Amino acid sequence: MIRWRHIYGTALRSYQSICESNVKQLSSCTMGDKFKLPSRYGAGEKSVWVEYIQLAMDYKPAVNLGQGFPDYPPPEHVTKSLAEIAVGDNCLLNQYTRGFGHPRLVQNLSKVYSPLINRQLDPLNEILVTSGAYEALFSSILGHVDVGDEVIVIEPFFDCYDFMIKSAGGVPKFIALKPKCLEGVQTSSNWVLDENELKSLFTNKTKMLILNTPHNPLGKVFTAQELQTIADLCIKHDVLCLSDEVYEWMVYEPNKHIRIATLPGMWDRTITVGSAGKTFSVTGWKIGWAYAPADLMRNLQVVHQNCVYTCCTPVQEAVARAFEYELGRRDSPDCFFVSLARELTAKRDYLSKMLQENGFNPTVPEGGYFIVADWTKLKDKIDLSSEPDQYRDYKFTKKFAKETGVLTIPPSAFYSQPHKHLGEDFARFCFIKKDENLALCEKLLKEWNAKKK
Amino acid sequence: MIRWRHIYGTALRSYQSICESNVKQLSSCTMGDKFKLPSRYGAGEKSVWVEYIQLAMDYKPAVNLGQGFPDYPPPEHVTKSLAEIAVGDNCLLNQYTRGFGHPRLVQNLSKVYSPLINRQLDPLNEILVTSGAYEALFSSILGHVDVGDEVIVIEPFFDCYDFMIKSAGGVPKFIALKPKCLEGVQTSSNWVLDENELKSLFTNKTKMLILNTPHNPLGKVFTAQELQTIADLCIKHDVLCLSDEVYEWMVYEPNKHIRIATLPGMWDRTITVGSAGKTFSVTGWKIGWAYAPADLMRNLQVVHQNCVYTCCTPVQEAVARAFEYELGRRDSPDCFFVSLARELTAKRDYLSKMLQENGFNPTVPEGGYFIVADWTKLKDKIDLSSEPDQYRDYKFTKKFAKETGVLTIPPSAFYSQPHKHLGEDFARFCFIKKDENLALCEKLLKEWNAKKK
Repeated sequence: MIRWRHIYGTALRSYQSICESNVKQLSSCTMGDKFKLPSRYGAGEKSVWVEYIQLAMDYKPAVNLGQGFPDYPPPEHVTKSLAEIAVGDNCLLNQYTRGFGHPRLVQNLSKVYSPLINRQLDPLNEILVTSGAYEALFSSILGHVDVGDEVIVIEPFFDCYDFMIKSAGGVPKFIALKPKCLEGVQTSSNWVLDENELKSLFTNKTKMLILNTPHNPLGKVFTAQELQTIADLCIKHDVLCLSDEVYEWMVYEPNKHIRIATLPGMWDRTITVGSAGKTFSVTGWKIGWAYAPADLMRNLQVVHQNCVYTCCTPVQEAVARAFEYELGRRDSPDCFFVSLARELTAKRDYLSKMLQENGFNPTVPEGGYFIVADWTKLKDKIDLSSEPDQYRDYKFTKKFAKETGVLTIPPSAFYSQPHKHLGEDFARFCFIKKDENLALCEKLLKEWNAKKK
Repeated sequence: MIRWRHIYGTALRSYQSICESNVKQLSSCTMGDKFKLPSRYGAGEKSVWVEYIQLAMDYKPAVNLGQGFPDYPPPEHVTKSLAEIAVGDNCLLNQYTRGFGHPRLVQNLSKVYSPLINRQLDPLNEILVTSGAYEALFSSILGHVDVGDEVIVIEPFFDCYDFMIKSAGGVPKFIALKPKCLEGVQTSSNWVLDENELKSLFTNKTKMLILNTPHNPLGKVFTAQELQTIADLCIKHDVLCLSDEVYEWMVYEPNKHIRIATLPGMWDRTITVGSAGKTFSVTGWKIGWAYAPADLMRNLQVVHQNCVYTCCTPVQEAVARAFEYELGRRDSPDCFFVSLARELTAKRDYLSKMLQENGFNPTVPEGGYFIVADWTKLKDKIDLSSEPDQYRDYKFTKKFAKETGVLTIPPSAFYSQPHKHLGEDFARFCFIKKDENLALCEKLLKEWNAKKK
């Protein structure tokens, strides 16, 4: 701990000095103002990921529950496929493939999703494969949001939405999920939208609403009724729904994932985004996709063709084979889509209990692999006065990491500027981590609490 | 041939009907005009790649010399690395890595390029890893070109430059390389810029000039003197140089690749782009990079963070190891950077000779892996009247593919609208193909010529 604390301090200063020097370089650039950032990017906003991933790389916390990725191996068949493809007989699988999606992958995506949305997905015109779900969001937003268009964003939100909307010249309109009740152990269903507030955001400039279910970071799985409310408003105001469903396979009993594209009248106005990284526990593979009617997809194709043009062939082939394998055992309890949720339920319950027992008030998630936990009952045990950050959750997560060795993410990063205070009482914990690391987390939390008594 | 001709005809009609139906969908979209493409993308221009790759996939020509990728295996150590990483002990190599570039890869890129540009490249601040060189170009252009900025583009050009500039709100200003002499066998050094014409393009709105050396499709390797002319103008007018050098290892004796960033005064204003796909014959891996001073790179980082955020981890690790392997035998004739050029010289000479003997007038390239060949001496042997395309090179390449089974690319795709006529007399042939396929090409050309006598 002490060693980590020491290097953390030194390296944090050096990190801050890099940031400052970057800003300095930006403003006192030898090239003068001529080469400043184009205005569409604002001041080049700071990313919580760049900051916290660099922290994790530099300071190697004992337990990293920050960024959302598993720290244990993906299913063996998935990685074995990639290995076989790389050195296989068909050397063309290391060369360019079709730009809008490798044929075998779009065929399999159609096989996976068609039964789930009750319509035959056209693999060539209704599906686009992208460099991660991230690029699918980018292509959807840049492909549809024009200058002055308004986009409704539900807070807390995956932070890239905001930046993408603004870089398209759009105007984000925020509405926060808020807890109905603040006391006792809660589930993510406790976090809801105010229907009247939502209605008031729709104007004649509204182009798009971004939905995220299961929700990051809260773990909320939107109910049929909640989705119907959103759908009714989208239809009434002729608005697109961009539905980020990357956690679609991580939904915990008795909750059910409902695809908003399946609600009456919604297929024609919904772009749904998925992720191979989340589906097969390979976040580093950076393969995602979007599906929607061909007329909406055309806009995404144009953006995709402009920014990356095509995605990694061997990885697309491996994802295609992974889907084939899972489709072959779709009704078995071993199917990864089922086994993953089962495995994560146990991890969720373990982390929730551990957090409760150690002074946090966790929101137990219905889906996804994050727990947002209120840390304010611990505030007398931790001195945040030495932390230079602006928001209390940044101060808390950094100081807490230094004192316990457990790294988490500050949720105020997922709120717009005026609403950041709504995230300040919380920390986000990721639980798709091996049991020994969750156990180590428990040990560190207990030791820390014992010392603070 | 006949079978291919038959399915080509049928499938071409079906392809055309898909295009038409897409256009129809776009214009008669059920959603109305509200969901048309944002104006920054114009009408969503047609891509020669989407069209010709789809043709190649649908009709399987006997020899595809169209798109630029090898049809034989990459170096064994490269693909073996990827296989080892996918199933290796470090399962974290299948998860997210650092957004601006996997640490081991940026370290190795610094080791490769620092000696070549005579300065120590800072791996963390002066290098960005991207989803192919394509995304490096996108991040460079979107990160620096603001609305109204002018960008000088040398024709013929990789077609994405134009689209990227326009989607950033910039204004491309084109200048064409033109042959000094039109008779006899030529080399790519015959294609030159008119210095006065180039000077006249620089205005107080000029933000950037895009250079491509070795050049696609001509194979021109810009000389020190030509680069100095460009550098002088960039310095005089305070203009950035975006130098696309993805064919840097494919330069044929006695020519030498000169990096414009090494010219006096140019480091501070040059962004150089490279490609793992071209370097290691794995175009499907989609890993590229840009390097430049930190203050210029910051703009690229912001764009990258906005569109894909991070690149494929196992593939980045494999490229890093591939560089380590080659650095370990840098002075050996077996080093791939040397052996590739040697191997390609023989293929270039073979294809050049074959084209000459079969009625084309090829421009023998000094670098890259394309030959641009004038087909007009064949015009009386081929009836293009049945081809519906607008430009003669589109008509020729399609009809020629149908009659011979040899697919090539129409170079007018690499010219701006007013200059497309400059490309119409040519076809682009790719020669990074196995010898048996080049031999098959020769056989097909000879048979075709014999039939046409």
